[in-house]
Formats: sequence, C-alpha cells, structure tokens
Amino acid sequence: MSIVTRSAADLRAELTAVRPAGDEAEPAHLLATALLGFAAEPGDGVLGRLIAATGAVAAADSLLAGVDAAGLVELVAAAGEALDEREAATGIERWRPRLDHALFVRSLAQAARVGARLLVPGDRLWPVAVDELAQHAPITLWVRGRGEALIEAPSIALVGARAATSYGEHVALESAAGLVDRGFTVVSGGAYGIDGMAHRSAIASHGTTVAFLAGGVDRFYPLGHERLLTRIADTGAVVSELACGAAPTKWRFLQRNRLIAAASDATVVLEAGMRSGSLNTAGHAAALGRPLGAVPGPVTSPASAGCHRLLREYDAVCVVDAEQMAELAAGEPRGSAAVRVGAAEVDDLASRAAGGTDTMDPERLRVLDAMSTRSRREVDDIARRAGMPVTAVMGVLAVLESHGTVVFRGDGWLRRRSA
Amino acid sequence: MSIVTRSAADLRAELTAVRPAGDEAEPAHLLATALLGFAAEPGDGVLGRLIAATGAVAAADSLLAGVDAAGLVELVAAAGEALDEREAATGIERWRPRLDHALFVRSLAQAARVGARLLVPGDRLWPVAVDELAQHAPITLWVRGRGEALIEAPSIALVGARAATSYGEHVALESAAGLVDRGFTVVSGGAYGIDGMAHRSAIASHGTTVAFLAGGVDRFYPLGHERLLTRIADTGAVVSELACGAAPTKWRFLQRNRLIAAASDATVVLEAGMRSGSLNTAGHAAALGRPLGAVPGPVTSPASAGCHRLLREYDAVCVVDAEQMAELAAGEPRGSAAVRVGAAEVDDLASRAAGGTDTMDPERLRVLDAMSTRSRREVDDIARRAGMPVTAVMGVLAVLESHGTVVFRGDGWLRRRSA
Repeated sequence: MSIVTRSAADLRAELTAVRPAGDEAEPAHLLATALLGFAAEPGDGVLGRLIAATGAVAAADSLLAGVDAAGLVELVAAAGEALDEREAATGIERWRPRLDHALFVRSLAQAARVGARLLVPGDRLWPVAVDELAQHAPITLWVRGRGEALIEAPSIALVGARAATSYGEHVALESAAGLVDRGFTVVSGGAYGIDGMAHRSAIASHGTTVAFLAGGVDRFYPLGHERLLTRIADTGAVVSELACGAAPTKWRFLQRNRLIAAASDATVVLEAGMRSGSLNTAGHAAALGRPLGAVPGPVTSPASAGCHRLLREYDAVCVVDAEQMAELAAGEPRGSAAVRVGAAEVDDLASRAAGGTDTMDPERLRVLDAMSTRSRREVDDIARRAGMPVTAVMGVLAVLESHGTVVFRGDGWLRRRSA
Repeated sequence: MSIVTRSAADLRAELTAVRPAGDEAEPAHLLATALLGFAAEPGDGVLGRLIAATGAVAAADSLLAGVDAAGLVELVAAAGEALDEREAATGIERWRPRLDHALFVRSLAQAARVGARLLVPGDRLWPVAVDELAQHAPITLWVRGRGEALIEAPSIALVGARAATSYGEHVALESAAGLVDRGFTVVSGGAYGIDGMAHRSAIASHGTTVAFLAGGVDRFYPLGHERLLTRIADTGAVVSELACGAAPTKWRFLQRNRLIAAASDATVVLEAGMRSGSLNTAGHAAALGRPLGAVPGPVTSPASAGCHRLLREYDAVCVVDAEQMAELAAGEPRGSAAVRVGAAEVDDLASRAAGGTDTMDPERLRVLDAMSTRSRREVDDIARRAGMPVTAVMGVLAVLESHGTVVFRGDGWLRRRSA
C-alpha cells in the first residue's frame, strides 16, 4: 500500500485546489510528481534520472513501499537505464525522511491558502525551456499570479548585485523599460538592488515581470520586498520549484539562479561586483549555451568588476542598452575578431577618423588637404601637395565643385570655408 | 645623369649630418631611399612594391632619368615582379613633381637644424615591427630624441579621444604609470586629451614614451603640446615617416595611426567616442592581427561609446588596468565561450555566489544551511532539512567541528555564530 493509492482520495481535493484551471493531468501521476517534488532538494540529478527512467508513479510507489538500493537499481535497469547502487542508496537516504504524509498535506493546504498553483511537466503553462536542464530540471513549479507570464512572450533575465550603485539602478531602470517596450518579459530574482529595480521598472512600464524565489511562494523573501512581490504577482508571476513551507537557503539560492537562466531566452548582468551571486546566474546561462550579456561600467567602480570579468573571461557580449539586449536575445550574431574584422569592417573602422571625414574617400580628402580657403592654387600645385596625378586631381575637383565644396576663381582653386 | 650620381657629393654631407651615430648604410642606397621617402605620401603601396622589386637605387635612378610607365613595368618585370601599367603611370605622375632637388636639400638642412635623425630599413634602430605593413610600410623614419626608444622594450599604444573626460584622463594616467612600472614603452600620437595624458604620465613615472606625428618632426603639432613633445624627445622619441617641412594633413593623421598600431606590441583604446580617430588606430591594429584592447566606461557616457563598440563588434579584449594590458601585449589568451566556459570555469563561476560561500563545497553549505546558531539539532533532523544522507551529514559535521565551525552540545549540534 503506498501513499499514492492509500491517500489518493483524501489528497485529490487538496491537489485539485492548487491546480490551474483547464490543466488536466492523470491524478496518480500528478500526486506522485507533486510528492517527489516535495521530497527533493532542487536539482537532484539522481531523482531526475530515476523519474525519467521509471516515471513518477513507479518511482514514488517504490520509495513509499520501502524499496532498497538494489531494488531501485533493478527498477531502473528494467526501464533500460542505469543507476549506480551507491547513488541509489544515498538517494533513498535523502528522500525517504521527506516522504512525510502530514508535512506534504500541510504544504498543499498552505499553497491553497495563498492561492499558489502547481505546475508539472506537460502542463500548458509549463515553461519548456527549463527542461534543457535535463536531469537537473525542476520536478514541479509553484506559481502565484498569472501563470501565462511564464510562456506568453520572449523573456530576458536582468540580474545584478544587491549592493547596487545609482549607476546600476539607472541602467536597470532604463533596460527593463526598454525591454518592455520591445515586448519582452523581464525575469529576475526579486532581490534588493538591481533585481528589485528591474522588476519595479517593468511594472511601471505596464510590462510583465517574473520573479523566481529560493523558498516556497507562501513566504515572500526578502521581507522588505513583500509588497513588491505582491505587485509582481498581480500582473506577472512569482515562481519557485520549492513547495510551500520551504525556507530559502544559500544552496537553494544557487539552484534558483539556474532556473532564472534556464527560463529566460537571454541573461544580462547589469551591475555586479566580483562576488555577486548574479555571476552564478551568468555561469548557468553560459553552461546552458544561452546568450549572456554584461553591461560595462567605470573601471574605477568595484560594483562593475564582475561585469568586466564576464566580458573579459567568459565572452559575455557587451550590451549598453535595451536594443542591444533585445538583439542578444534574438540570437543576432555579434562581432568577433575571426568573423567580423575582415577588410570591410577594418576599412569601415579605419575610415571613422578625423571628425567629419569618416565617409570621405581618400582622394577627395587628400585634394581638400592640399587646398586653402584663403589662397588660390593651381591644379599642378594641388597635385604636388596632395601627391596625386594632375589628371586625378582634376577629376576630383570637378566632383567637389559640383558639390559646391570648392570653387575656381580666375587663376586658381579655392576651398570653401564650409568644406 | 641622375641626382643620385650627380649630387651624391654635395648631398653626402647633409645626409651624414642626419644619420644616427654608428649606423652604416651604402651612400647611394641611403640617398635613393631618403629621396623616395621624401617624394612619397605615407603608405604609397605602388612605390613600396617598386622598391621591393628593383631596390631603392634603381627605382630612384629610373624615375629621375624620366622613365615612362612602360619602362617602369619592364624594370619591375625584369626583377620577376608585376606592376600594372596604369599604376605605374599614375605613380610616376604622383612622384615626379616631388623629386625636387632644392626642396629635398632644404628639408635635409632643416632636419639637421632641429637634430632630427634619418632611419632606413636595416638600420640598427629601425623598428622592424612596422615592416609587417608590407608594401605600405614606411620608406624612412625621422626621429628626434633617443632612437633606442623605438627598439629597447616591449611597447603598448595607449590611444583615445582628444575630447577626454576626467574619467578617461584618470584611466590614461593610471594605465601609463602601471605599464612603465612593468617595463613597457608607452606609444601614442601626441594629441590633446588621452594621448597627451598617457605621454605625461609615462614621463612622470620616469618611463620611456614615443610620439608618432602626422607631419615633419621639425614642427611639433599640436602647437599647445610643443613643450610636452620636447620633453618626450628628451628621454624618448618623437617620430614621423614624413620629412621635415611636411605639414600634418587629415590623410597623414590616418596614415600616422597605422604606424602607431604597427610599431606597438598591442593597442589599447582608453576612452573614445563613436567618431574618435583612435578607432582608426584600433582598426589598423585589428587588420595587422595585433592584440587590441578597450577600456570600458559608463554606458551613460558618449565618450566611451567607441570603446564599447570595439568590445561588442570587434572582439577587442576588455582591459581594466595596466596588469591586464600587459597580459594582452604578452599575448596571453583571454577567455571565450568556446574555449573557456567549460565545466571547470562554470563551476568556478557558479560557486561565486551568496557572499562568503564562494569556495565552500555544496555539502558543507547544505549542512550549515540546515543548522541553527540558537537551537541544537540532531543529525537526523539536520539530514532531513539538508536533504542529505545521515552518513554524509555525520562526515561533514566531523570536518566542520575540526574547523570549529560547529559544536556538539549535550543532545545536538550548534552552528557557531562566526560560521
């Protein structure tokens, strides 16, 4: 007798109460998935592989039935997959103490009280991008607010340090507003500093923003952001893979960061010191092969040192405004020495010099260099000064004259002051 | 009869007067090279190929003898190279008006007056790195000051906008001083703004600095930097490929920038707007495959927009201080997503999170998360909270206890406040 069969009846009501409208899932599967999500720490790869191999129901049933390591290895082998017996043993030790019926029911009741909704893989609102985390993907997601916010638009994670400067807050405000204007959902971690400013700016721009928490969504953390997170849930969503009642821990913050990176089309670090947790989010984005951007700042500001490290060592793309962040998320290629600095680009770059003359061709430049606005000069004189053939100089002069840049006066050519 | 033979005698004295001590060169070759350098605009690729094919003496002789295009094509063909007849014709038109004996002698006299020295390829002091410009390499170099400054140490070009902000000037000052401390020669363009600050800081740090000018070294440009350039020549060098008497023109500034990039082991743009001429120098460095660095600044500052463009589109390396600039010049590899963000780096990055816990291993982190500084907890309780096997928790507790991070009190474990 397992909890899934034994208490299907009394748990059915609690589970229905926390399901989003219109999402159907086979009750036993839903219950087993919810229970395993409740029992696991975020990112438990062994449990992820177990569920992938046997399915949630068989996994939960056997664990509740008191399966031992050997039995679990057999179960996985029967499904054509492999599980190391030591992994199985430590896994069982990790999960069993948490397969607690009373605690689970209390967590579901708390979720219902705060209006949290349970998402499982396959649900209409499930953000499939997180499944790229493979065996480390979340087993369940708990959502407060509008679940559609997770799937309805392209998204960018705007993250940064809690200890933000006024520069960083300015950048966060401008970036979030500009991305909302371009139809993006702004994803962040709900923390003080950069995260909070990004969420606030998105809301102020009447955009959608999503906050991922490191603990259950029944308790908004940090406390000082309780009202902000409530406003986020009004129009967007507050999300966690942890069940209600779970406290945020440092470990869970690190795992939460992997969700921010996995749930977003691109991650941009707006301002971060060398030890900012946002570098951890950046690392996850890079590991997933997602576009990673960093906003530079003054090299005299330690608050930007982390961003500069991402640019220097992790090939983050230098982004200076919302437009460039949108390009990043769209996967538009940025320059690289190998790809971009071919002759064309170098000429382009080489031509951007000496102020107003960027786009002027060399011969015109040299002819104008050789002319005066005060003293008239003959073609031969101009040709010698310019180091150009007389014929070429005459051709250029004809063009410049048609532009009104130069003028012929009696016995010689003059450069117009305006030129 | 050519100038080379006819006036070898009367020119010998002038030439000897402008030669560095101890540098021997065959007189006819020296004279022909000096004359061709005098006649050419910087970077004249046709003349460069002509000299490479026939040698300076034959090239000068035939031009002075009034060779026509067909004759020049024959001469080059005889040397096993190819020259297009149109190129030859326009070349002759360009060069002949400047093969003026009187003007040449006057230029040499002026050089002698200001103590300028003539360098030709093969000289002991010739900076061979500029020969990578191939047919666009300088034919001659004119130097005021200590010619050794061109060859005695590794060099970095520090360039930037004339319209520098106090931030850019601060960066220039710090960078030049730090590079001098590391034994580098600081190369720049002697202009107002960033260039001037880089030169000044190098001098103030008792280092060596070299300025490349766009006109003859007899006239220091800009005028407002006459004293600065004089001080540069006292301990370093002021250099130009143009003979004395040649005025700086916009065209020559662009060509001067190619010399700054070619003469330096690396080029770093310290502060530059979108239209700064220093982007032209950066383009030459990139075209030569030389290391290119850019110092970021506030995205709110247009004065740094050019640097950010180099980082974003031209794969310039983000450098924030002299140490990183020295690494750049040493050719040490920087990170790139492909090469560097392997598991190791990501773990490293992923671990830098949540303040003081960067380097802590996950199990210790989770055990400490599960403990309290106030209430004693038993191993089973800690294991359940941490989602870890009891055996693993006991092992971690033993280690933490030996570090004094945790302590056992009667009936349970406590986390020390310091931890």
